[in-house]
Parts: sequence; C-alpha cells; structure tokens
Amino acid sequence: MANDLNTIAPHSEKAAPDFSNWSCPLPLADYPSIVMGHGGGGKLGSELVEHLFLPAFRNPALENLGDAAVLEAAGARIALSTDSFVVQPLFFPGGSIGELAVNGTVNDLAVSGAEPKFLSASFILEEGFSVAQLAAIVDAMAKSAATAGVQIVTGDTKVVERGHGDGCYITTAGVGVLRAGIQVGPHRVQPGDAVIVSGTIGDHGMAIMSVREGLEFESPIRSDCAALNGMIAEVLDAAGASVHAMRDPTRGGLASTLNEIAQSSNVGIVVNEASVPVRHEVQSACELLGLDPVYVANEGKVVFFVAPEAADRVLAVLRAHPLGKDAAHIGHATAEHKRMLVARTAMGANRVIPTMIGEQLPRIC
Amino acid sequence: MANDLNTIAPHSEKAAPDFSNWSCPLPLADYPSIVMGHGGGGKLGSELVEHLFLPAFRNPALENLGDAAVLEAAGARIALSTDSFVVQPLFFPGGSIGELAVNGTVNDLAVSGAEPKFLSASFILEEGFSVAQLAAIVDAMAKSAATAGVQIVTGDTKVVERGHGDGCYITTAGVGVLRAGIQVGPHRVQPGDAVIVSGTIGDHGMAIMSVREGLEFESPIRSDCAALNGMIAEVLDAAGASVHAMRDPTRGGLASTLNEIAQSSNVGIVVNEASVPVRHEVQSACELLGLDPVYVANEGKVVFFVAPEAADRVLAVLRAHPLGKDAAHIGHATAEHKRMLVARTAMGANRVIPTMIGEQLPRIC
Repeated sequence: MANDLNTIAPHSEKAAPDFSNWSCPLPLADYPSIVMGHGGGGKLGSELVEHLFLPAFRNPALENLGDAAVLEAAGARIALSTDSFVVQPLFFPGGSIGELAVNGTVNDLAVSGAEPKFLSASFILEEGFSVAQLAAIVDAMAKSAATAGVQIVTGDTKVVERGHGDGCYITTAGVGVLRAGIQVGPHRVQPGDAVIVSGTIGDHGMAIMSVREGLEFESPIRSDCAALNGMIAEVLDAAGASVHAMRDPTRGGLASTLNEIAQSSNVGIVVNEASVPVRHEVQSACELLGLDPVYVANEGKVVFFVAPEAADRVLAVLRAHPLGKDAAHIGHATAEHKRMLVARTAMGANRVIPTMIGEQLPRIC
Repeated sequence: MANDLNTIAPHSEKAAPDFSNWSCPLPLADYPSIVMGHGGGGKLGSELVEHLFLPAFRNPALENLGDAAVLEAAGARIALSTDSFVVQPLFFPGGSIGELAVNGTVNDLAVSGAEPKFLSASFILEEGFSVAQLAAIVDAMAKSAATAGVQIVTGDTKVVERGHGDGCYITTAGVGVLRAGIQVGPHRVQPGDAVIVSGTIGDHGMAIMSVREGLEFESPIRSDCAALNGMIAEVLDAAGASVHAMRDPTRGGLASTLNEIAQSSNVGIVVNEASVPVRHEVQSACELLGLDPVYVANEGKVVFFVAPEAADRVLAVLRAHPLGKDAAHIGHATAEHKRMLVARTAMGANRVIPTMIGEQLPRIC
C-alpha cells in the first residue's frame, strides 16, 4: 500500500496551466528553460530577478536588492535575509555546507549594517542520505552559530526520493537588528571612496574546485568560510558613518560584487590589479583551470567602500583582526566610466572587467 | 572548459569526515540513512528533531517547538518561521507550490499568535525547468502574498543539474509581529478545553493524491490551500485570551497535530468521530486508497483549543468567515488518558489514534 503511494511520476504536470501561448518576459528569451547560469552571480541571475521576481513581488524593501531586506516591525528596525545552499561536495577543506549555511546568512545581515540575531534552518534531504553525515553538518552549524553569536530558533525538514536531491540542501534565513546610526548601501557610495577588501580572494571557490578536480598542492587550499559580523562591528565602531557600503563577494567573486555596486551606485570603479591579495596556490590553481580569481567565490571576505579619509583607520582595524590580516586598499570609486569596473594592470594599462553572463563555477555555495 | 568544470561527481565525499566509528544518536537506530518518513509528520521526523537538531542548536525559542519561534528583537516581540516545499506535482487542483509556499509560512506565523508581515523566498531550480512554469509559480506567490497582506522582501535562487532536483523547490521564511496580549501554545491547553476545527479535513492531501493516482470524481477534489491569518485575527479579536492554542494540521493531518498537542500539553484529547467534517468525495477517495482522513494533510485549516465558555463564540465567528463555514466543535481536552488521542466512534466505542511512524503521503507540501 504505502509503496504504491510512494511512486510519484517525475515532473507530473497534469494540472499545470497551459503555457503554450506564454511569452517569456526575459530579455534573454534564448533561455526558455532554466540553465545552470541562472543560479550564478552573473547577468542571467539578474535577469530573473529584474524581469520575474521584482515585477511580481514589487515592494520598496525588495527593490533595494541588498544582501538583506531592511524592515520595520513593531517599531524595531530589523533586517531579513535568506540563502539556499547546494554546494558539492558537502564537505571540503575548511568547512562544509553547514558552516556555509550559517555564515552565509550571518554575513548577508552583517554587510547590511545589522547585528545578526536569529536564524531559521530548513533541510531538503535525499532518501538514503547518511544520518551520520547529517549529524556532522548539524554539528558544524551549531558551532558556527555559537561562534557568530546567533541562535538557530526554528526549522523544517523535507525528504525527497533518491535521485531527486543531492544528499542535503539547506536554506537558512536570518533576522538581525539594524545598528543605530548606521546606513550603508550602494546609494551612499561616492566618487573618491576607497575600496578595501578584507583579505585574499578566491580561496573558497578554489578549495571546492581543487576537491572536484582532484588537484593536489603542497598545502591544500582551504575555504575562507567564516562569520564576518564581529570584524564588521569593529570597523563600524571605528569608522561609523564613513563606511558607505559593504558587500560580501560570494558567487561571482570580487568582480561581480564590484560591477553590481558600480551599476547600482552609478559610479565607476578602478582597481589596481597588483594590490588585490591572492594566495599563491589559489593563483596557481586558477591558472591551471583557466579561471580568473576576481570571479571566484569567497565566503569569508568583505569589500568596504569608505570615505577616503577613513581608509587607513579601516585598514588598521581589519589588519588587527584575525580574519582581516591580509586586508588591502585595492582601488577607488570614480566619476569616470560610470557603471563600469576597470582594472589597472601592473603595466599601467586599463582593462574593463565585465559582469559574467552565467557563472564560472556552479554549485559553489 | 566551462563544461569540464560543470561536471560534478555525485555525492563526492572526498573531504568528508570519517563516520565509521560514529554511533547513531537516534533511538530508532534502525535508520542509519534518511528514509522518506523522516520528512513526514510522524515519529521519525520527531526523532530527528529531538535527538539531532534540538541537542545541537539548544536554545529556549527552539525548545518551544511551536510552528514559529517567538523572539525579542530590539524590543519588539516577533515570530520567525520557515518551511521548505517539495510538493509533487507542482500544480494541482486548487493551487500550486507557489500558493503553498506563501500560505504555509503565513499560517505558521498566524497560529503562533503573530500577524504575518514579511516573507523571504528561496528557490532551488533544476536545470531545464521551464521559465514559463516558474513565472506561473511566482505569480501565484505574488497573488497569495497580496491576499494575505504580506510582502516578499528578499530571496535567493540556486540551480542544480538535471536529475538533482524536481523542477522547483521553494523555501520561505516569515517574520510576524506578536499580537499584544495574546499568548497561545500547548502549555496553555487545559482539561475541558473545546477542540474546534475550522472546516473539512483531508482536502489538500486528497487533491494531490487524486492527481498522482489519476482518480476521477464528479467534482474534482481541490486543495484547501489558503491564508488563515485574516480568519484567525477575527477569532482572536472575539475570544482573545480564551484561545489557548492553535495549530494548522498540515503534514500528518489532524491526528498528528492533536497527538502533538496531547503530548506537549500533557492532557488527553477526545474527538467525536461523527462530528469531524469530511467531504464526501474525500471520504470516498480515502476509502479507495485505504487512507484515514485524520492523517491526511490540510493547507487551509486550523485547530483551536479554547476555554469551553468561548466555544460557541469562536464557532460563530468561524462560520461567518468564508474559510470557516464548515467549522465544527469536534471534541475536548481531558485529564484522562494523558498524552493520548482517543476517538469516540459512532457506536460509542473508544479507539486510540496513534502517531504515525513515518508518513502516509510523501511530498504533500
């Protein structure tokens, strides 16, 4: 009996509406079906947001398109953020999907100027997934939450049949409390602002790719996955209103984050290539795989846009923090070449770093 | 190049910890792997919560195990809830995964005594999923949010390779504001409380099963999927502190919800079988498939535990509301047979209705 009922026709659409006359609202109408790139940090993902989600859900909080929505609830200024995690493999040097799921949402709240407080965690498990591995993931989540000072207060578990998942998908949502007197966002970025990155780029993406591709290095590349709220709080304590914008350069890497900010701030951004910190082994792995580290995901880094007179103060605070010791002043915002990201090479030439169409590395978080 | 990188070994566990000496913390150690039942409303799901999630994440908000966590943020009393939706098929008579994803979280907040305000929505899409179907789902979400009076303020989209998803999984999280003066929860249930259900049971589950099993009825069974916050607000306005507990009987149906409340309230519950409202066609479909409607999922019903003197007032308010016209007083809490749910049959006999081990119907929401 139960077995009969467990048989579900895949993609049964008996009751689905008739879509035959439907015209695709996306300007990229070449994509009537979802492709991997729709989940990346590039243009395809933005198309979905701009032409599907935004028009349908339209409201001021959503239209800000920040890493978290800034809201008022019963007189309190709070932030709400969510992310789904589908990384493969589930365990990698430096962490697991568990650390990512907690730190990812903690960081989205922190870069929005909020103090992260409460998380929800929802699991989509695949039939046959090891309970021991689930326990290891849950343990990693608990430790990450404790380190970040947040509580996981509610959750859900769904199970899908073998072959309809990938072991474990996790979606976290987080609530934070906005720090008093802090207003950050692309709208505050001005020409002249210093661009500071809190450390080496590309570590997370290349840790994942090294495992997937079976690359071996003398010292293995470890994910930089970490909760940034403590370090960000120290920067805000020291520099307050001089901090104009913060963003964690995850999917799509530093280049996608800077392009997004250039576009939503209507400024140009110049980055001095030589000053962008990249670990030697990450650079080597990127060269081997034909990747550019500026597009590779980070999970424990933050980019600051700060008033130029505060740049040295912010750098000093970052470098005194264990997660910011490799922080670097990598460039500035400018009134020229608006909405574009330009890299100044070591030879003194300029090259445009465009937004990617899809994604360089799938399933990175 | 890109294609090489897109190839991901399924379940790659190269970096996974060694689990060989790990002992399963579940009392049901017969289940070292996840089975479909872990996602149901029954004992297996509870085991995961009690023996895995609770010990790891331990905090007072989580330990309440309500449909939503009740929290304080910057002086405001708020509620946070989350659910993942993996229903198959994605479209069914009476709704789609879109309506479920919005109404499910809205209802979890409402039964916790909160006014739902803001939702996050996170999508895990399968490569190849139709953008037109996604647009229809998003449209259903937008309409449901408008009807419920909530805003979808933030979100995320991930894409997994063909064969690693099921078209579209959605996880919503919601923030609500606690109503002043309202305290509801199993701890407030007392012997003598009237048990009231807001309408016919089993509609959602049998709508899904009819599609899956290809059952045809004169009038098709439609899901009852609806946002209950408006109706619940009217009940609370009319009966206030006389409302002791509310719960929406989704996965596992009325029986699982009442068993849960009996156990966490330490009372017995008696239900008069003949007074439980069940649609004729739902009853017929259940008989055909060998199911008991008390275990079948609802997505637009709420069970109230109210002080006996308020029962008639609550019933009157419900019956005057379009979503509550079939409301019925179905039983009461008692100091006898504590922690058990007992049905009084039409013949005057009593039978225990136990908690299921796993789930009767997988992928129902």
